Amino acid sequence: VRPDRIRPKGGVVISVSDVGEFGAIARVVARLGQGRGVLVGPGDDAAVVAVPDGRVVASTDLLVEGRHFRRDWSSAYDVGRKAAAQNLADISAMGANPVGLLVGLACPADLPVEWLEELADGLRDECDLVGAAVVGGDLSAGDCVVVAVTALGELAGRAPVTRAGARPGDLVVVAGGLGLAAAGLDLLLAGHSEQPLADAHRRPAVAYQDAMRLAVDYAATSMIDVSDGLVADLGHVAAASGVRIELTASDLPVDPRLEAAAQLLGTDPRSWVAGGGDDHAFAATVPPGSSPPYPVVGRVLAGGPGVVFSDAQPPGAAGHQHFRS
Amino acid sequence: VRPDRIRPKGGVVISVSDVGEFGAIARVVARLGQGRGVLVGPGDDAAVVAVPDGRVVASTDLLVEGRHFRRDWSSAYDVGRKAAAQNLADISAMGANPVGLLVGLACPADLPVEWLEELADGLRDECDLVGAAVVGGDLSAGDCVVVAVTALGELAGRAPVTRAGARPGDLVVVAGGLGLAAAGLDLLLAGHSEQPLADAHRRPAVAYQDAMRLAVDYAATSMIDVSDGLVADLGHVAAASGVRIELTASDLPVDPRLEAAAQLLGTDPRSWVAGGGDDHAFAATVPPGSSPPYPVVGRVLAGGPGVVFSDAQPPGAAGHQHFRS
Repeated sequence: VRPDRIRPKGGVVISVSDVGEFGAIARVVARLGQGRGVLVGPGDDAAVVAVPDGRVVASTDLLVEGRHFRRDWSSAYDVGRKAAAQNLADISAMGANPVGLLVGLACPADLPVEWLEELADGLRDECDLVGAAVVGGDLSAGDCVVVAVTALGELAGRAPVTRAGARPGDLVVVAGGLGLAAAGLDLLLAGHSEQPLADAHRRPAVAYQDAMRLAVDYAATSMIDVSDGLVADLGHVAAASGVRIELTASDLPVDPRLEAAAQLLGTDPRSWVAGGGDDHAFAATVPPGSSPPYPVVGRVLAGGPGVVFSDAQPPGAAGHQHFRS
Repeated sequence: VRPDRIRPKGGVVISVSDVGEFGAIARVVARLGQGRGVLVGPGDDAAVVAVPDGRVVASTDLLVEGRHFRRDWSSAYDVGRKAAAQNLADISAMGANPVGLLVGLACPADLPVEWLEELADGLRDECDLVGAAVVGGDLSAGDCVVVAVTALGELAGRAPVTRAGARPGDLVVVAGGLGLAAAGLDLLLAGHSEQPLADAHRRPAVAYQDAMRLAVDYAATSMIDVSDGLVADLGHVAAASGVRIELTASDLPVDPRLEAAAQLLGTDPRSWVAGGGDDHAFAATVPPGSSPPYPVVGRVLAGGPGVVFSDAQPPGAAGHQHFRS
């Protein structure tokens, strides 16, 4: 709970419809921070942001209530942190510096306006981690809460790190937590809402600086934000690069908290590590001579695209796809 | 009905869940066109788009089913056109050239995948009008259809035309249709779905080139995309510029189709012209010496911000605000 948030007096909940569209937008904008390079910020038809080398990096992701979060499990602040994080991570995975977010929000008219203010706090604080800021947005009535975030970034003259650059001989490394958010979700689903890993579902801790180091200092040939699961996302890299990726299950980093959660739920922690998304770890390929300080979990081989294991593939490694149960 | 769309064989409807997230995305991407300056297009963590002068113009708007469109009134193609148009218009209103769109889409699992393909056709065709292209997006399950579009643009070295530049003495001009979409919606609500103006609700015809002429050739000091209604949106200009705007109701352009619709519904057509949004006309202020070939509807005065009429204010001129009935 943040001390600076506005609490309604006498227990009266002020809804979005009480203050109206423009009143709600004014309250949200009042919570936002200033970003570097923002030439025109919120309040005009469009924002204008500096991207000095003449290229903008841009990505959109949605958070949908009931699919990506539940309001009884996650605070608005958590949803804001997560909505910003998953989009900023996409920019970092290109080796770019995030500079701005645009936030489209649909919500029911009876949503407490305080929920929007705390969402804005979460967006702002996650942006602060990388020096970015919310530069614009849109607010609309809707039957469910949908947070549609677009992140903008700039490359500072560097080439983007795409999914298509992995070459046979490269090493596969991962930076950031793997499987924590998926384990947290399973803990929440099983009723263990007080387990520390539940927070990893609510609010991923993204290793933005490590993505930048992989791109700039360790010459990553490809990189991806792990959102669907390590195996699924490396499958995208293998397909885009036209290579085979061989992982070694015994080299996958298993956080001690995953071991504890797996014991509680009677499952294999490597299922979460190989198949769980939503931590927004970074999986990268680096040239054989590069030695980044991150776990090496596999290597790039020539041959048909796909992900294989040099040892036993963990169960449930295929990862998540929307519209599939 | 477009001849090139894929029809399911034997009347079987193929749903989004039948083809899955990645299958649906592949079908959508196959319908999209190529844009100029797209360095990395759909399929990576983020897109990379050229904005040669080092500034990106960006705006986000949502279309929510049941609020902005109804699937029984509008085809998916119409929704795609409208979703693109309302965002491209925001870029044009800054005097910028639109270059790319990112599209976040939430939809129920049982939505026919053909609906997504036709939506993509609509997005593509509207982008084609201005030389832009869809460069990325996201697809998620959700209980209602939400189309969250972010448009990107570039200024070609010019200053952005904001809402804040109107000066006393400037003339107020409007380019594009006014009140047509609002009249179309009222016709649809009254059951007149075959009236030609109903199409103005389904799919606005945006005067993109006129916005550019106002910015480049006629030195517009301020400009806004009319989405909430002329009076409401000029109120935003007056507030941002710290000026008063005086309109003359008898100078407002009234399309002959509005006269006919007003007779049918027994109302005053100027209500739609002054208060109706969603046509995405452009309202601009130009210096007194500038003579653009568009209707002059008022002038800029010194004094407290606000919009006044030099003659009788049309009824219902206040315009639309979300969450207010």
